[in-house]
Amino acid sequence: MTHDRRSLTEGFLFTDQYQLTMAQVYWKKGLHESPALFDYFFREYPDYGRHQAGYAVAAGLGWLLDWIEATRITDDDLALLRGQRDATGAPRFDEGFLAWLKEAGDFSSVSIRSVSEGRVVHAHAPIAIIEGPLAVVQILETSLLNHLNYQTLIATKASRVTESAHGSPVLEFGMRRGPDVGANAGGRAALIGGADATSNVGVAHYLESDPAGTHAHSMVQLFMALGEGEIGAFRAYAEVYPDETVLLVDTIDTLDSGIPNAIIVFHELRAAGHEPVGIRLDSGDLAHLAVRAAAMLDEAGFPEARIVLSSELDELAMWQIRAQITEEAPRYGVEAEALLGRLAYGVGTRLITSHGYSALGGVYKLVAVDIEGEWVPALKISDTPEKMPIPGDKRVWRVYDSRGLASADVVSAADEDLLAITSIDLYHPHREGIVRRLDDVASVEELLVPVYHRGTRLDGSPSLDALRAWRTADLARLDPGVKRLVNPHVYHVSLTTAVKDLQRTLVAEARAGRRSVE
Amino acid sequence: MTHDRRSLTEGFLFTDQYQLTMAQVYWKKGLHESPALFDYFFREYPDYGRHQAGYAVAAGLGWLLDWIEATRITDDDLALLRGQRDATGAPRFDEGFLAWLKEAGDFSSVSIRSVSEGRVVHAHAPIAIIEGPLAVVQILETSLLNHLNYQTLIATKASRVTESAHGSPVLEFGMRRGPDVGANAGGRAALIGGADATSNVGVAHYLESDPAGTHAHSMVQLFMALGEGEIGAFRAYAEVYPDETVLLVDTIDTLDSGIPNAIIVFHELRAAGHEPVGIRLDSGDLAHLAVRAAAMLDEAGFPEARIVLSSELDELAMWQIRAQITEEAPRYGVEAEALLGRLAYGVGTRLITSHGYSALGGVYKLVAVDIEGEWVPALKISDTPEKMPIPGDKRVWRVYDSRGLASADVVSAADEDLLAITSIDLYHPHREGIVRRLDDVASVEELLVPVYHRGTRLDGSPSLDALRAWRTADLARLDPGVKRLVNPHVYHVSLTTAVKDLQRTLVAEARAGRRSVE
Repeated sequence: MTHDRRSLTEGFLFTDQYQLTMAQVYWKKGLHESPALFDYFFREYPDYGRHQAGYAVAAGLGWLLDWIEATRITDDDLALLRGQRDATGAPRFDEGFLAWLKEAGDFSSVSIRSVSEGRVVHAHAPIAIIEGPLAVVQILETSLLNHLNYQTLIATKASRVTESAHGSPVLEFGMRRGPDVGANAGGRAALIGGADATSNVGVAHYLESDPAGTHAHSMVQLFMALGEGEIGAFRAYAEVYPDETVLLVDTIDTLDSGIPNAIIVFHELRAAGHEPVGIRLDSGDLAHLAVRAAAMLDEAGFPEARIVLSSELDELAMWQIRAQITEEAPRYGVEAEALLGRLAYGVGTRLITSHGYSALGGVYKLVAVDIEGEWVPALKISDTPEKMPIPGDKRVWRVYDSRGLASADVVSAADEDLLAITSIDLYHPHREGIVRRLDDVASVEELLVPVYHRGTRLDGSPSLDALRAWRTADLARLDPGVKRLVNPHVYHVSLTTAVKDLQRTLVAEARAGRRSVE
Repeated sequence: MTHDRRSLTEGFLFTDQYQLTMAQVYWKKGLHESPALFDYFFREYPDYGRHQAGYAVAAGLGWLLDWIEATRITDDDLALLRGQRDATGAPRFDEGFLAWLKEAGDFSSVSIRSVSEGRVVHAHAPIAIIEGPLAVVQILETSLLNHLNYQTLIATKASRVTESAHGSPVLEFGMRRGPDVGANAGGRAALIGGADATSNVGVAHYLESDPAGTHAHSMVQLFMALGEGEIGAFRAYAEVYPDETVLLVDTIDTLDSGIPNAIIVFHELRAAGHEPVGIRLDSGDLAHLAVRAAAMLDEAGFPEARIVLSSELDELAMWQIRAQITEEAPRYGVEAEALLGRLAYGVGTRLITSHGYSALGGVYKLVAVDIEGEWVPALKISDTPEKMPIPGDKRVWRVYDSRGLASADVVSAADEDLLAITSIDLYHPHREGIVRRLDDVASVEELLVPVYHRGTRLDGSPSLDALRAWRTADLARLDPGVKRLVNPHVYHVSLTTAVKDLQRTLVAEARAGRRSVE
């Protein structure tokens, strides 16, 4: 290959072919620079099968904006497009179109309003609204969806896992099962979503976070092969990291070998003036072994030693482990609350792949096009009403009640300002005849803010801590029922009267138009 | 951020923290340059829930070797590691260790034997064997697993989807739901696994494949907003691509609007001397709509027009669609075989995320370490016998019977040569007491070949076509029962007598050692 893989596959051509073929149609019709508005939103919360999300955590915007700022079509890209041939052997792309791409082939003509990363977001309400020349924002679609869908998916999973940890540390360990270099985005999203650390060294350093990790089975195997046994491995590790000793105790036999050997080394450490950090359990019945380990560590004089659990964990497994510990601990003379307080969780595969729900179905839908200086709303009618986007230029508001809890996200027309309302009529985004009056409106917040405006980045490149703070704050303002792991309450996402009226009018017009087509 | 994200997160620090902390332990003990052997293998075929894989397709090696060749620790990486602090605030990494990393921090000391990408591979048998200085191959673990696990997962899914297409084209459309830039690896793996094209423009060009794609709903919405309706969109598209016209017919109503409008435009195309390519159905009951569409297209004089199906497809959905078409087509006067022959499949989310089984559990296990010039086998005993790696330096052979079908993959000791055998005793890799004599041995092939040797790449960087040819050839030599979509036959992966004896001896020694620990 003579092309640089990275610049070719992660640059301007990081898009679907049909974006380019459509862009050329727009160019031929003279529509390519017509201002257009697209909404990014998702229709369904992740449903992991036995359990379901009632909210999502937005993530990916920062890296999308990095990509947007860095990306411009190259001569190499253009040469490859020029080389595409149609079925007759003729060039697929017109030289005029390629000349326009060479000129306009970046995203400095685009503007984006979006929620901040780390914020709680909901189905159907726009998470970002993208404005720019039709052909350019069309080409942007794939990269935008790719960057936002995956990180939002993982941040959402991480948030659930973190909730399920009840304050104990959560460590993201999934890199080896993650999707190629996409694992980096997964590590970042996990941290935004609440994980306390990642084992991914590069991403941790990039985000100015301390990477997490101690040792693997291979280190124990090695010392066994050398004839020094498991205890030899533990001693070697403790010698190098006397103040950060966490020992993996399940290479041979957790209860008969690993924990007794760890306790021997812990005593040696303490005798040398150091305090051991803890042990890690990576196989077997983790809840039962945690109880047994706690009993052994307590008896040996290490009641503070952490017990790190790993192996196919997710929010449901963690919930079950906590429940089992609560039930089983007293039988072994272990105080359940104390044990729960000393746990930490290493969460790998099931976090970085969002086990059970492997893709967020976020979409990017044309909602308006500027014709002669005016936004004309666009609509897609579908046999499934849920698939109908909300037409036109809009704003999104979060309404809080007098308890300080978010009670609805409301989508208004662009010329509506809800900041000062005290009550409002809310319409279901798709179902007809469902209207609800909200009277307890204590405050209203506008959710979408300008983050990129025609070549200028406006998001302030917030730190990881700032994004994590958004999530913490938003979760505190979310009804506990919406946060429930299984069968959560459905959060209200609603339309104002103005938006509902527009939707009804357009549907009627489109249906009339359809009948006259034939 | 002052660091370049790509070089920091995709270079030498694209690894787990514990690889570095272990490496430092080895360094302190003077073991860091001891030659070590690691096996890469997986223990379980993908199980998608309602259906299961009986084989996998290896992929990812080419990009792993690209990474290995390009990667060396940078001063920036070293500075970040130098900045890591332990719990007491002291540097976590010793200057001596960092000096060694600066010197030895690439992979030119490593050698790899592996199967070629595109080849059918099986559980438990090593897919790659990695040899090199202990600390270096330990650090390599994460990147190797990351690169091979994901692409093998997706190539396997693609192979099943392609088998389920029964010769009809399969188009990979999943980029927008793929995992950040990992979607590029997914697109590549899909092509290796059998997909005929990808919509991912950059990856397609990088692999010298023609990207696939026509238009989206947004183009139809746009022309509707302009007052030109669906047919205006279709005409605009056909005008630009008269010889490649595939029209998406479900934006308004498939049967009442989309197909009738497409047929009008198809007649116009034909009148202008062009032949339309087909239509795409993206929602609703795809099997039923395909039958209805075929009936309408046949009647209108377009019996050759392709019918492209998309929307949440996977191998099982495709199987069901084919079955339903076979049953339903005659009722509408459509010949089922002819219709099946004109289908094409756009497969997106469920391919690029391996829906239902989102991570291949491939592992990288220490199997031997060189002590004073001799390989000492390493073992991990586990409460689960399936988790025990096969110890020692080994070779892997595929045995073919007189029908030309692969009948077993056999793991032998490094000093065994099975090329000329005519019969062999086979032992189950984990279960005791299971031995089987194989008499019908027509030919034997060694599977692992040197692909990288101490800085020199030996795989020949095969073309995509060459990798695809491997898969086609291997599938033709695989028992149909192993290829079955649901409840496939279990393919035999076995040990020779020599390997089984070594495993037994080591287990006995380790168990004895364990009892004497306390």
